[in-house]
Amino acid sequence: MTEKRNLIYEGKAKQIYKTTDNSKIIMYYKDSATAFNGEKKDELPSKGILNNKISTLIYKYLIENGVKTHWIETLNDREQLCEKVIIFPLEVIVRNRATGSFVKKYGAEEGEIFKEAVFELSYKNDSLNDPLINSSHVIALQLATKEQLLEIKKQALLINDLLKNLFSKANLILVDFKIEFGLTTNGDIVLADEISPDSTRLWDENSLEKLDKDRFRQDLGNVIKSYEEVLNRLQKVLS
Amino acid sequence: MTEKRNLIYEGKAKQIYKTTDNSKIIMYYKDSATAFNGEKKDELPSKGILNNKISTLIYKYLIENGVKTHWIETLNDREQLCEKVIIFPLEVIVRNRATGSFVKKYGAEEGEIFKEAVFELSYKNDSLNDPLINSSHVIALQLATKEQLLEIKKQALLINDLLKNLFSKANLILVDFKIEFGLTTNGDIVLADEISPDSTRLWDENSLEKLDKDRFRQDLGNVIKSYEEVLNRLQKVLS
Repeated sequence: MTEKRNLIYEGKAKQIYKTTDNSKIIMYYKDSATAFNGEKKDELPSKGILNNKISTLIYKYLIENGVKTHWIETLNDREQLCEKVIIFPLEVIVRNRATGSFVKKYGAEEGEIFKEAVFELSYKNDSLNDPLINSSHVIALQLATKEQLLEIKKQALLINDLLKNLFSKANLILVDFKIEFGLTTNGDIVLADEISPDSTRLWDENSLEKLDKDRFRQDLGNVIKSYEEVLNRLQKVLS
Repeated sequence: MTEKRNLIYEGKAKQIYKTTDNSKIIMYYKDSATAFNGEKKDELPSKGILNNKISTLIYKYLIENGVKTHWIETLNDREQLCEKVIIFPLEVIVRNRATGSFVKKYGAEEGEIFKEAVFELSYKNDSLNDPLINSSHVIALQLATKEQLLEIKKQALLINDLLKNLFSKANLILVDFKIEFGLTTNGDIVLADEISPDSTRLWDENSLEKLDKDRFRQDLGNVIKSYEEVLNRLQKVLS
């Protein structure tokens, strides 16, 4: 059996552990919540458990629909066993509606529905403040090859279609989301990291109420209650 | 004969006038120099004359090499007669070496040579501070269609190849440049605005001395002398 070994990386909301199998890692979901590049911080008891459960449901659904991911198995309330990959230093963002930084940066109307999904990349680099980056920059900085970038874009848009479909059944609007991709030892590009209300903006279809990390960012209260609501709706839809 | 009529637009370094021919405008080159989104300002006597001369030489060269532009005729020291176009609200930037905002934003090494030219777009919008924008955003905000954007990219990279070639003969390194494109009444996409040391970074091939607006931005002195040097070298190469 694969056993947990020492911590190799600590992120804002997760820890990554080595295992006795060199090709696998354990991802541990913490309760920490951060926003605005770490300027706002809090502990939200049970957030890690909820995100682990939500991400597990979503990963299983995506895998059933042909998406390749790093996920192998969810071990317990807070831990997943995953394939060890080299993470591309890119935040891959897909937007179906204008909100957040898009509205602030480009003066678009809040909530505006895009005819076609918007694809966006940020350079994952805390000291540079995760700047927006375009495909040409990514290639010049050798963060990914042209072919890898095309594959990442294709996968991201496929995942958007699948998730829109899933959340719509749960009466949720998929406004936008951030995902990451990793490179396996045999050169495959796979979805990595989590998909949860920490990284995904979800609005109730009728009330347009936010059920995601914006509740924490904007001090709207009921953060955990909203994450539980998302989990409950997904469980109903996927059962 | 086409005659000058009233001012219709005043930019930081140029004025645009109506003419008696509704399909044509007159572009007037001012001596004003601005940087950092207008925070730094000065008057540099004869800059407008030099930029008009340099831009005229470059436009003629590009037209001879098959590039479609708005330029019709240079009328005098400070004025060009141009086709009236609708300018895309995009700053089209091509980079051959890392410098300026690219180094600041992405932590690249100053002067690094890119294997492949970097293509970049900014949203021309003073109140938003001309933010970096990607192709997907441009389409979502309906600043250009997908087809128009492909044509703009193709033209910009062709212009880069032609300019690199031209400046190399003048012992100048084309580091990067900013251009704009406009849409004619019959739907053609043409190069518009100026190409001068105000919008183009040029380094001496041997000394790497800057011969462009960075001399003004960075208070290096000899701004006008450097622009004159660029003009002299281009005149030699193109005579």
